[in-house]
Amino acid sequence: MNKHLLRDMEDLHREILSMSAIVEEMIDKAAQSLRGRPGELAAEVAEADKIVDRREVHIEEECLKMLALHQPVAVDLRRIATVLKVNNDLERIADLAVNIAERAHSIDETPNFPIPRKMEEMVTLATQMVRGALDAFVNLDAESARRILPLDDAVDRLNCEIIGELQTIMQSSAKLVPAALHCFSASRHVERIADHATNIAEDVIYLVEGDIVRHKHDVARNSRTQ
Amino acid sequence: MNKHLLRDMEDLHREILSMSAIVEEMIDKAAQSLRGRPGELAAEVAEADKIVDRREVHIEEECLKMLALHQPVAVDLRRIATVLKVNNDLERIADLAVNIAERAHSIDETPNFPIPRKMEEMVTLATQMVRGALDAFVNLDAESARRILPLDDAVDRLNCEIIGELQTIMQSSAKLVPAALHCFSASRHVERIADHATNIAEDVIYLVEGDIVRHKHDVARNSRTQ
Repeated sequence: MNKHLLRDMEDLHREILSMSAIVEEMIDKAAQSLRGRPGELAAEVAEADKIVDRREVHIEEECLKMLALHQPVAVDLRRIATVLKVNNDLERIADLAVNIAERAHSIDETPNFPIPRKMEEMVTLATQMVRGALDAFVNLDAESARRILPLDDAVDRLNCEIIGELQTIMQSSAKLVPAALHCFSASRHVERIADHATNIAEDVIYLVEGDIVRHKHDVARNSRTQ
Repeated sequence: MNKHLLRDMEDLHREILSMSAIVEEMIDKAAQSLRGRPGELAAEVAEADKIVDRREVHIEEECLKMLALHQPVAVDLRRIATVLKVNNDLERIADLAVNIAERAHSIDETPNFPIPRKMEEMVTLATQMVRGALDAFVNLDAESARRILPLDDAVDRLNCEIIGELQTIMQSSAKLVPAALHCFSASRHVERIADHATNIAEDVIYLVEGDIVRHKHDVARNSRTQ
C-alpha cells in the first residue's frame, strides 16, 4: 500500500471507529430506556441517529473518493469495499437502536409491564458483538471475528426464550397484548443488531482469509429465528 | 464511458435483473404460501435463496473486478458502487422471502387461522416496489424511482392495520396467540422488503440527481412503523 493510501485508510478507520462509538452509546441508551426514562432517552437516541446518518454519507463519499484517487487493486480495493459495507451495517444498527428506544417509550404506556429479564442479557451480548466485530475489522483480526459468530446463536436463543415468555404474558392477560407486542418488536430489533454485527464479522473473515462464511452461517440462522 | 466498461456494465445490469427475477418469484411464492401449501413452497423458496446467495457473491466479485480493471471515476464509479448496494438489498429481500414462507409454515400449525386480508395487498405492493425500483435502476430513471417512495408509506399503513387486527385476534383468543405472532413477524418481513425497495429507489435518485434522499425519508419512516 502506498503511503498516501495508507494514511487515507487510517483516517477512514478512525472515522468508522468514531461512528461505532456513537452507535454503541445509542444501543446502551436504548437498553437503558427499557429500564426507565424512555421518553427522554428516545429523544437522545433519535438525535444521535442524525449524526450517524450524516457520518454514513460522509464515509461513503470518502470511500468513493479513495477509489477514484488511488485506484486501488486486490486487497486494498477489497478493504475499501468492506468499509462501505461496514458503514452501511453501522447505520442500520443505529436505526434499530432508535426503534428499540421508541418501543420502550410505547411499552411505558402500560405501567409495570413485566419486560423479560433476559432482554438485558441479550442487549449486552449484542453490544459486545458490535464492539468485537468493529475491533476485529480495524485490526484485520479474523480469529477475533470468528469468535463473534457463535454469539449470534446465543442471541437467537435468548430471543426465542423472550418470545416464549411474551407469548405466555399475552395468553394470560389480554390487556397486556399491546405492550407485549412492542416488547416483541424490541426483542427482534436487538436480534437484528446481532445479525448486523455478524455480517461485519463475516466480512472481516472474508477480507482477511478470502473465505466466504456469510451464507454458510445464514442457513443455520434462518432456520432458528422467528 | 469506454466501450469495455460499457459492455461490462451492461452484463452487470443483466445479472442484477436476472437475480431480481428470482427474488420477485420468491416473494410471489412466499405470498402464495400464506394462502396454502406452505411446507412445499417454503422448501422451494429456501432452494431459490441458495441461488441468490451465490449470485450475490458473484456480482460483488464482478463489481470489484470492474473497479480494479477499469478504474472508473465520477458517475461510472458511483454506478458500480450502487450495484454493490442494490445487490446487497436484493439478497436481504430474498432472506425475508424465506422468513415469510417459514412463518406461513408455522401459521399453518393452527388450522383456519384468520390471516388478515390486507396482508395480500401489502405483499402485492411490496413486490411492485421491488420491481419498480429495479427497473428505475437499470433505466437510470429518477422520476420512476421517486414514484416508489410514497408506496412505502402505504405499506407502513397496511402493516399498522394488520398489526391492529392481529392484536384484536390475540386479545379475543389466547390459543391464537402463537399463530398471530408468526403472522405479525411475516407482516414485519413484508414491510422490510418494502424498506429495501425504498433503499434501492433512493440510491437511484442519488445516482442520477446527486440528491441524498435516504435519510430525509427515514425520519418519517421511523416514527410510524412498529
